[in-house]
Amino acid sequence: MLENNERTELSQLGEFGLIDKIKQGVELRQKSSFKGIGDDAAVIGTDKKKTLVTTDMLMEGIHFDLSYVPLKHLGYKAVVVNLSDIYAMNGKPTQITVSIGLSSRFSLEAVDELYTGILLACEKYNVDLVGGDTTSSLSGLTISVTAIGEAEEDSIVYRNGAKETDLICVSGDLGAAFLGLQLLEREKKIFKENPEIQPDLSGHDYVLERQLKPEARAEIIDILELEKVKPTAMLDISDGLSSDIMHICTQSEVGCRIYIDKIPVDHTTGIAAEELNLDPTTAALNGGEDYELLFTVDIKDYERIKTNPAIRVIGHITEKSDGYNLVAGEQIIELQAQGWNHLNK
Amino acid sequence: MLENNERTELSQLGEFGLIDKIKQGVELRQKSSFKGIGDDAAVIGTDKKKTLVTTDMLMEGIHFDLSYVPLKHLGYKAVVVNLSDIYAMNGKPTQITVSIGLSSRFSLEAVDELYTGILLACEKYNVDLVGGDTTSSLSGLTISVTAIGEAEEDSIVYRNGAKETDLICVSGDLGAAFLGLQLLEREKKIFKENPEIQPDLSGHDYVLERQLKPEARAEIIDILELEKVKPTAMLDISDGLSSDIMHICTQSEVGCRIYIDKIPVDHTTGIAAEELNLDPTTAALNGGEDYELLFTVDIKDYERIKTNPAIRVIGHITEKSDGYNLVAGEQIIELQAQGWNHLNK
Repeated sequence: MLENNERTELSQLGEFGLIDKIKQGVELRQKSSFKGIGDDAAVIGTDKKKTLVTTDMLMEGIHFDLSYVPLKHLGYKAVVVNLSDIYAMNGKPTQITVSIGLSSRFSLEAVDELYTGILLACEKYNVDLVGGDTTSSLSGLTISVTAIGEAEEDSIVYRNGAKETDLICVSGDLGAAFLGLQLLEREKKIFKENPEIQPDLSGHDYVLERQLKPEARAEIIDILELEKVKPTAMLDISDGLSSDIMHICTQSEVGCRIYIDKIPVDHTTGIAAEELNLDPTTAALNGGEDYELLFTVDIKDYERIKTNPAIRVIGHITEKSDGYNLVAGEQIIELQAQGWNHLNK
Repeated sequence: MLENNERTELSQLGEFGLIDKIKQGVELRQKSSFKGIGDDAAVIGTDKKKTLVTTDMLMEGIHFDLSYVPLKHLGYKAVVVNLSDIYAMNGKPTQITVSIGLSSRFSLEAVDELYTGILLACEKYNVDLVGGDTTSSLSGLTISVTAIGEAEEDSIVYRNGAKETDLICVSGDLGAAFLGLQLLEREKKIFKENPEIQPDLSGHDYVLERQLKPEARAEIIDILELEKVKPTAMLDISDGLSSDIMHICTQSEVGCRIYIDKIPVDHTTGIAAEELNLDPTTAALNGGEDYELLFTVDIKDYERIKTNPAIRVIGHITEKSDGYNLVAGEQIIELQAQGWNHLNK
């Protein structure tokens, strides 16, 4: 019945292309819509005290594989990745809602496991589960979490405030979550080929935990507050350092220079990388799912953060025309965004 | 590997049983969590002005059938059903977030259609799309919407305030959405059996629109404000009048008496019911998806609402021991909850 029925594949646009497209049609009418699409969370309210809202949807087979992800860990992670977005605005999370879609494959006991993880994360991060939806699905498990948080208008950190000479900082270490995933995938493959072989994941506790049960960096927000340092731009690393620093640079209209030897990589990440014959720096740059905070600070704040072991300065912001660069010894390499793009898979 | 692995089917509990189970494990720690799980929306905030939050997830094959639901209508409806929950708290919606999961079956043009409907609803109800998530799915379309709204603490209407002698009121008319669905299902069946036959839906515009493109009853909230009537309890009819009045009664610890001949049914709903050989009253009682407001008011407010054509008094609240009753002429029948229960399907 349809003629001239044009069809553009979503994979041609990618996730960020699609978001840009959606954004184009959006108008903000409410005075209380302080900041809409385009950052880690939306900012709502007409008073100085703002409400932050962020949401993420996790789908079985795309974001998680129940053949090796325990439901309790999945519930925990689904909450944490949303709280991480609130911290990335320099805010404090306060409430969440959780919606789940379940096929008949899931029993009450399975749902119990999932909610045990969800409530464990609530307890740890002092947030309340205040609502949600439960429904059936034709196949698989879907989890959609919305996190609510609060922040003073003047404290909120967006992605677009980085300026030339600012220092680029990252919390914790990078690449571990990606290597954890690779180990789990390897064991899954071995198990499929020969179910008699027991999984060999010994010595890899850290990278596995980073993949299966990541934490949001609440304490970094506390440290910044204590040190009276307000980052000029911030986000949480979900796609990978390369892709995420570019989000800051694009929105701030600046360039960057990142020093490869400054990128923090845990030694157990290095061991896992060797075992898997992968480059740990590549994992740190493109792996994603680390949920560390990536932020820029004014150079005058250097003294306040330099001695903190939880924060590492990995580079600095340059003018836009310099582009996005990676410094490896004498070499300068152009940075490539190779983060996750679910729609491209 | 697992022994003594108990398995309780979710269908044994049903959706409300599952929600009760989840609720049991939940603790509220944040001072700003004013009202958690159990009403149309959560209530958040420490000031007099509260934030309302509600969320719904719609899954292809469970909540909608794309063989007869246009994507534009689906987008519109996904927003409206959430806004309806905000109005049901006597609040005003202000923002929404929308997350979508898409299989590769969906093109950019399809996503455009969906968002056209979403943004149309935003425009009509004066709310802003401020965030969301886009991801791929292994199969089908999933839409998760969170609506944010506002209300003064003293104006918020919960489900648990109905008291003996209160009048039970309903807006608009009931049963049409259910009959719209039955007509669409009939035509789908005919088309499957014989694709040559053109669908015959003429004369059924009203019931079809009630199913495909429902509206939230924003104007009822305005009328109540204008008339200075604050309902004692309220919700929106999504599961069906029988099931939903029981939600009010259970939470308010009261009984009810509903008069069958007072239940508003549009004449076109009657015509559709006749054509389909269905009872229009049963459709009104158990059909669901009408998104009309069901509320109770103090008997002293009767004068203020009785002449309003948009509001109909259909019964009154009794003491708890009287139970839930339906009055049909001389007969009194016990009311049965037969609303939707997706997990039972």
